[in-house]
Amino acid sequence: MIGELELILCDIGNTTFHFLIDDVEQKYFLNERLPDFNETIYYISVNDNATANLKHSNDDLVDLEQYVNFKTKYKGMGLDRKIACIGYDDAIIVDAGSAITVDIMKKAKHKGGFILPGLKSIKDLYPKISHKLQFDFNTKVNLDKIPLCTQDAISYAILQSIIEPIKKIRKKQQIIFTGGDGEFLSKYFENSIYKKDLIFENMKRIINANNCIA
Amino acid sequence: MIGELELILCDIGNTTFHFLIDDVEQKYFLNERLPDFNETIYYISVNDNATANLKHSNDDLVDLEQYVNFKTKYKGMGLDRKIACIGYDDAIIVDAGSAITVDIMKKAKHKGGFILPGLKSIKDLYPKISHKLQFDFNTKVNLDKIPLCTQDAISYAILQSIIEPIKKIRKKQQIIFTGGDGEFLSKYFENSIYKKDLIFENMKRIINANNCIA
Repeated sequence: MIGELELILCDIGNTTFHFLIDDVEQKYFLNERLPDFNETIYYISVNDNATANLKHSNDDLVDLEQYVNFKTKYKGMGLDRKIACIGYDDAIIVDAGSAITVDIMKKAKHKGGFILPGLKSIKDLYPKISHKLQFDFNTKVNLDKIPLCTQDAISYAILQSIIEPIKKIRKKQQIIFTGGDGEFLSKYFENSIYKKDLIFENMKRIINANNCIA
Repeated sequence: MIGELELILCDIGNTTFHFLIDDVEQKYFLNERLPDFNETIYYISVNDNATANLKHSNDDLVDLEQYVNFKTKYKGMGLDRKIACIGYDDAIIVDAGSAITVDIMKKAKHKGGFILPGLKSIKDLYPKISHKLQFDFNTKVNLDKIPLCTQDAISYAILQSIIEPIKKIRKKQQIIFTGGDGEFLSKYFENSIYKKDLIFENMKRIINANNCIA
């Protein structure tokens, strides 16, 4: 059983190596020197160059992609998105990181999804459009009132541009949030939960289901 | 009456001097050398530096701001937004340029508004987040189906992030679109019209109403 074993997981993304080492998280930027862990690393990757770097410092690696049997008609779906969806029969899965991916599972089938820019990238965009759109994000802006100042006008628009497209495709399913902004965004939706370690949890499921550990 | 007179209007924005010279449009970038028009220029401006440049090349200027008596509780509303709203008692006014401003007029009162990033700036944002989010915008993406490829997943999200926040605040009013992307976006809304020269039309209304022309 996992949990009694020491286990090293790694989620290789576009900006970091995200490790879970004996249930403790650790992040390294892609240009950082990685330690030699001297143990098996079970990884998933959406970044071939970064994967090559991990292989340079560690020999004992298991690519979990080979165990992922996720059927979808969606062309070009990232491995991390697939893994986030595993185990959900009827739900919307939202991974709110540098981009915000939104995927729909219905009757245990993946029905498709869409990709919004990440919260930080949208915030940073406004002052680049005009210095008059400099603002401090108001996390408490009232979404039931039409804004009456620039700060609220932008904060409101940012939130609604994320919230409303998700509400549009939602029937009554639960929404599962993960990613750096997942907890914050989950507060705007009824019947939603935030799973900080959704990807790692599902990597463990894959390891368990496939008896990957010798 | 206007229309029989030669008339030079100028809308000074964050990226261009936008002239209407005897009903013909002409744009100059802010760093371009401006001609000496030898006639009165009726202008509005949201850009003090650019206004100073116009004053450098032309003496005979009338700032229309002094004639704009637009009441609102909104703090920091740009003059161009105010002028776009003039004359509408019950409508949503959307100026889709480098930013997309959305304003609500109800019973001849301005109720507030919000500011989305411009269409081009959102399109350009994706490949900066990740090279895997390079895409060609699909202007014909079906908004009634959940996307099944990256191109559609991004195109769909961009459109819905603009359309849905506007639909959210809309009752049954007409929507007036202007700005470079106004015509394209207006197609997604029933009971909407595109007014390419909304700002210039309203500048003429102001000139007429105030007998500005000696």
